[in-house]
Amino acid sequence: MPKFERHIFICTNQRPEGHPRGCCSPAGDGELHRLFKAKLSERGIRGSTVRANKAGCLDQCEIGPTVVVYPEAVWYGHVTPADVDEIIESHIVGGQPVARLIVPDSLLNNTQQKDAADKSSERGETRKE
Amino acid sequence: MPKFERHIFICTNQRPEGHPRGCCSPAGDGELHRLFKAKLSERGIRGSTVRANKAGCLDQCEIGPTVVVYPEAVWYGHVTPADVDEIIESHIVGGQPVARLIVPDSLLNNTQQKDAADKSSERGETRKE
Repeated sequence: MPKFERHIFICTNQRPEGHPRGCCSPAGDGELHRLFKAKLSERGIRGSTVRANKAGCLDQCEIGPTVVVYPEAVWYGHVTPADVDEIIESHIVGGQPVARLIVPDSLLNNTQQKDAADKSSERGETRKE
Repeated sequence: MPKFERHIFICTNQRPEGHPRGCCSPAGDGELHRLFKAKLSERGIRGSTVRANKAGCLDQCEIGPTVVVYPEAVWYGHVTPADVDEIIESHIVGGQPVARLIVPDSLLNNTQQKDAADKSSERGETRKE
């Protein structure tokens, strides 16, 4: 069988409440991932063609919840359950990424906030992953 | 900042002992993921350039432990801790994927075994993810 045509990674990382970087799945219930799976299935999109995959921390916590679609490397930020249908319909089915949710490169890997969080970590505060 | 030049997803999914599909991280200790992170760091490769990411089930359990590198979508199977240096040196640093570990498309998404596992699931056997 061929590789996945699209491989959707949904951040499900959790950090302790109050962590300076927050996290993409504060309630830890994996709701976004479940929605992607269910809605792909509803449309009859086979799991061997497009996979909605749980991911550990994608390291873009400040713009979370984050989702990245490969191989095209399209990053989505602040994704809510209400956005899942549009991402599937427009991007996965139609091949047109959802512009309003795309994270521009300038906001990816924002080291300033990471550095602040790393310093918190060095002070002994808990950091998961 | 730009996107990751390479995004390495390492399957860390666990299933109950005796599951027909097995799992990539039977001991659940995330050793492969830790090794990738440590060895990238040792080589001074910044986390904002190449990320070693935990992944949930990549759905290629029969050839696990599996690792997939995007955006080039190179799949590695049966990866052991002893392979991590070579993947980093040859593929991540040198741009040359490690041929001996690459999973050919014909072995990806092997539905026969998935179907068998799904049938087990329907019979009420536990399946994680």
